[in-house]
Amino acid sequence: MKNLDSLIRTYYDFPRKGIAFKDILGIIQDTEVFRELILKMSSNKIIKSSEAIISIEARGFIFGSAISLQASKPMIVARKPGKLPGELLEENYYLEYGKSSLSIQKESLMRFSSYAIVDDLLATGGTIDCVANLIRRGGKKVCGSVSVVELMELNGRSRLKFPVESMMQI
Amino acid sequence: MKNLDSLIRTYYDFPRKGIAFKDILGIIQDTEVFRELILKMSSNKIIKSSEAIISIEARGFIFGSAISLQASKPMIVARKPGKLPGELLEENYYLEYGKSSLSIQKESLMRFSSYAIVDDLLATGGTIDCVANLIRRGGKKVCGSVSVVELMELNGRSRLKFPVESMMQI
Repeated sequence: MKNLDSLIRTYYDFPRKGIAFKDILGIIQDTEVFRELILKMSSNKIIKSSEAIISIEARGFIFGSAISLQASKPMIVARKPGKLPGELLEENYYLEYGKSSLSIQKESLMRFSSYAIVDDLLATGGTIDCVANLIRRGGKKVCGSVSVVELMELNGRSRLKFPVESMMQI
Repeated sequence: MKNLDSLIRTYYDFPRKGIAFKDILGIIQDTEVFRELILKMSSNKIIKSSEAIISIEARGFIFGSAISLQASKPMIVARKPGKLPGELLEENYYLEYGKSSLSIQKESLMRFSSYAIVDDLLATGGTIDCVANLIRRGGKKVCGSVSVVELMELNGRSRLKFPVESMMQI
């Protein structure tokens, strides 16, 4: 995609020593690139085949809600511990640095039959796989995942047992 | 707005005892209401008069990026501690429950001259005022704030010294 790579910056040793952090926030400062990206993601077959989108806190919200608007798909969210009220499904995941968990409101998950997972970055695949497990535990279908950027050397897609798309591979 | 109030649920004693938490996530599960809301927010004069949007982590991202797409305004973000790389401007704020801080990347703030602050909820006004202070410290103009829901009894708008709009008052 035009200019997408020039808008992504790498910060070394952030948030922990040894991590090369990809900052994708430059994308949303360029309205033309952001629009082109959202149109491309919204027309992806994984999004089109899903009944709803599930986006992952917090940067996934940025892309998920714009896709939700553009593609007219309802959106639910996967959030970090302590953020969601109500009855939750919760699952642990392991990052390049440390362990955390994600939760979904049971009631929101029950409302739709199939989900496209949206996040900014596909790295190890840990967070996306965690969300896929939550969807399956709720008895719902995972249509696949759509990310803005995929870090190829971490080979995250090898652990994901569903269709995986990314708009840019680095 | 049609149906907006029926999509907002109150959870008592979340995240702390004594807090009545307003869950606005039902809005993004209804594509028609979400679209109507985003069109209304995008056509608001505070958004129209700003060069860029600044949205507040994390639920503010959901509305901010959809408005950014709809109104063709670039977006920057205010995030919680430890989330943003690079050189930051940081400022403390006080919530109904406890103290925290928000940061903006200096470089992103410098790119635009005036900002509309977008968040889901106007409660005490503490987080929105914090972001306004960050914008001013960077020498930039605050055009105003646009929220989805305003909690009238907390009278948050009385402390905000700029135009304040909300789509629903409860």
